[in-house]
Amino acid sequence: MALYIHRPLSFLNYKIGFLNICFKKYSICSLLRNPELGSEIEIKGWIANIRKQKHNIFIDVKDGSTSEQVQVIVSSDLNVNTKELSAGSSIITSGSIVKSPKGNIEILAKKIKLISKCSTEEGYPFAPRKEYSPEYIRQYLHLRTKTNHFASLLRVRNSAVLAFHSAFQDEGVINVHTPILTSNDCEGAGETFKVIPDNEHLLKSMAKSGVHVDEIFFNKKSYLTVSAQFHLEALANGLGSVYTFGPTFRAENSKSRFHLAEFYMIEVEIAFLEELKPLLNFVERLLKKVTNNLLDNNISDIVSCQGINRTEFEWLEKDFVILSFDEALNILNCNASQFKKLANAQNGFNKEHEIFLVKYLGNIPTFIIDWPRHLKPFYMKECKNDSKVLAFDLLAPDVGEIVGGGLREDDFQKLEEKLPKEGVLEWYLDFRKFGGISTGGFGLGFERYLQTILKIDNIKDTIPFPRWPHNCSL
Amino acid sequence: MALYIHRPLSFLNYKIGFLNICFKKYSICSLLRNPELGSEIEIKGWIANIRKQKHNIFIDVKDGSTSEQVQVIVSSDLNVNTKELSAGSSIITSGSIVKSPKGNIEILAKKIKLISKCSTEEGYPFAPRKEYSPEYIRQYLHLRTKTNHFASLLRVRNSAVLAFHSAFQDEGVINVHTPILTSNDCEGAGETFKVIPDNEHLLKSMAKSGVHVDEIFFNKKSYLTVSAQFHLEALANGLGSVYTFGPTFRAENSKSRFHLAEFYMIEVEIAFLEELKPLLNFVERLLKKVTNNLLDNNISDIVSCQGINRTEFEWLEKDFVILSFDEALNILNCNASQFKKLANAQNGFNKEHEIFLVKYLGNIPTFIIDWPRHLKPFYMKECKNDSKVLAFDLLAPDVGEIVGGGLREDDFQKLEEKLPKEGVLEWYLDFRKFGGISTGGFGLGFERYLQTILKIDNIKDTIPFPRWPHNCSL
Repeated sequence: MALYIHRPLSFLNYKIGFLNICFKKYSICSLLRNPELGSEIEIKGWIANIRKQKHNIFIDVKDGSTSEQVQVIVSSDLNVNTKELSAGSSIITSGSIVKSPKGNIEILAKKIKLISKCSTEEGYPFAPRKEYSPEYIRQYLHLRTKTNHFASLLRVRNSAVLAFHSAFQDEGVINVHTPILTSNDCEGAGETFKVIPDNEHLLKSMAKSGVHVDEIFFNKKSYLTVSAQFHLEALANGLGSVYTFGPTFRAENSKSRFHLAEFYMIEVEIAFLEELKPLLNFVERLLKKVTNNLLDNNISDIVSCQGINRTEFEWLEKDFVILSFDEALNILNCNASQFKKLANAQNGFNKEHEIFLVKYLGNIPTFIIDWPRHLKPFYMKECKNDSKVLAFDLLAPDVGEIVGGGLREDDFQKLEEKLPKEGVLEWYLDFRKFGGISTGGFGLGFERYLQTILKIDNIKDTIPFPRWPHNCSL
Repeated sequence: MALYIHRPLSFLNYKIGFLNICFKKYSICSLLRNPELGSEIEIKGWIANIRKQKHNIFIDVKDGSTSEQVQVIVSSDLNVNTKELSAGSSIITSGSIVKSPKGNIEILAKKIKLISKCSTEEGYPFAPRKEYSPEYIRQYLHLRTKTNHFASLLRVRNSAVLAFHSAFQDEGVINVHTPILTSNDCEGAGETFKVIPDNEHLLKSMAKSGVHVDEIFFNKKSYLTVSAQFHLEALANGLGSVYTFGPTFRAENSKSRFHLAEFYMIEVEIAFLEELKPLLNFVERLLKKVTNNLLDNNISDIVSCQGINRTEFEWLEKDFVILSFDEALNILNCNASQFKKLANAQNGFNKEHEIFLVKYLGNIPTFIIDWPRHLKPFYMKECKNDSKVLAFDLLAPDVGEIVGGGLREDDFQKLEEKLPKEGVLEWYLDFRKFGGISTGGFGLGFERYLQTILKIDNIKDTIPFPRWPHNCSL
């Protein structure tokens, strides 16, 4: 009756043995980890370097799977047209896997085919064996992965994402997706972006009399999230400890090397938490675990990214420092001559102060606890008999604050009094009425974490497509 | 000199043995997996059920870490005030771990303390042992995790996130964060949201004469991403195969049970790919691997979420079906009486057609390949000697399309001709000039995947905070 043919995949013809075989098998990374000496292999990649000699051509090939390259030896007997084989060209080569006298894995080419050429004469901005500044490279966002430094950065970034997920899962903390579009301004700092359909026809068809254009689509004004904390608290009040790892937005006119308009934040809310100390300890445990994981599995990319090595990670062997806000302020006041602007209890610390403190304390990540109430948001839990709140910042070498968090006010009356009058936050009280629990949590700036461990000067070089004022390329 | 005290965490006093101990140790999930019979334990959670008998009170406690509950036996000798202990209340209880005659792990309470009560009289919307419709529960987004169904859904969702990540890493596909804010409308369907700072003062301070308000902050109009594909292609042209797993947005006035304004998409771009078949095979391998992983590790949550069990997953043992567009159209035309609206080559298939096709083919996920060129975007690679393109959709039971993808046009001239004149897409051509490679990829709707495997009727019940027209709560 029906004119269709049921053709399960396994009956289709196949050119190469791709079927049901993991893509990874064909990468340079796999080749170098598990070389089967003497066997045939096909490698697809880009030419990193090419050296033409009398009897042989030596081609270093990379394919993005690792910072390492594999050398392909092309005998002149193969009569390869070498004219278009230049650095940056994409090629397919097949040959046998051999070991060089020095012990390196190499490929003795039997066939080599150009996929697509690459030439600086036609505008390719990166010449082989030349170093470029990050600012220069950043002009070519769509070509950045062609540079070794940035490809390494992205591989470390990938491993860090997985290492954070895995560390949370080991602790029984559950991943949730909190909303990007929200009708709340969690931080209340007026740094939100608003969101409206870019379609006059749609807006017209949905319009209602008396409704402002900003409110047509969602029936209320909608913003990009500045923090997922309230949503995390709601979810923790039923699911237990939760975390989210997603994009966060700030409409701030800052072009500093520490700020992005779109950045990634890991936000965590721990359920049934009544003290600050287990939270600080969790942060320390998490950062050490993830960083050790990266050193164990990605050291070649870490070295290739910024040239740093294991000796930069002495802090992993030490306990993080804990200082009260007042103690930190004292240190800064004793070193007043170092700063353009003095620190004070009214305004807290600026970036200059934060970076100084960590350096002063031997480049060990430093928790600042016991914050004056006025420097932290309304929802922070009050210390007993004190004008302080149970909040903390974690300052990291070269970067300053990378984590901020604390315990949440769990006294219903106190919270009700402190709730901002503007904004519709009754729901934030509501889940506390029905079997409410004490929670605490934090937000960790993912790019700042990468900045501190990899010693990257500008945060714009830690994310594939950075967005900041006047810049939303591609 | 300095007035600070270096106090490493390990010297701080500690109330309970929390220090350097994984949070997971204290969960009901851990207790039930590794019970140390006879030893003491402290459990924090919510009362699921309470039965008061003459000599004992039996309390089922849940804490969000698993769909299972643990029974706490409170002897009347303990003189517990049971008045405020009702379903939904949060409690701390400590006691010894025992095994019931039936073999269940239970706690013989020594102490029990109410954290916070919960009562339907004060407005708690969920009575114990009562079933509510998803529509009813959806009215209380901030309380949804207090229901067993939705807590199970979120635990499955968590596991699915991790299973996808792990499946990609096993294949050597690298995770990247593509931008949420972009100056491109990748799909060109006019379903974008535009993004503007919600701060008059900021906009005023950044304003330049002649610049429209939409363009002040980023110097150009900026949108929420509708697809990361172009960015993935750029990254793949240096890093190799890549994927992204993040929020995606569509400003579409649809309240259907298959659409959200904010949803999660897994988008993948495989490098050095010259045929469609390995891509279809990868999709099949991926979905089977992730789903088997969920069945192995989350079966109790899968059952608790929607009451379905392993027998619903027969498709895991079968090869996915592959049909050409024309074959699929033929089937639909042979069954024309089934549809409100006939399918045709001009407009392609609608949801009704998609769901019928999968059912007709025995509820096995079905690839539709060889699409007419006009039904797919400009960047799809053309079949040789044909008006078709090398694109595919994957249709899943009950839901229809969950994956869409194909090979990208790698003929530079052809692509240049087809490039839309509006929109600034030179960069999309540019990375193909310099060692360009053939790639192919797809986008997988994460919520639709959850919908199909868990048989959830409405997509709004697969995500913690659903957003759709007229709805952006919390």
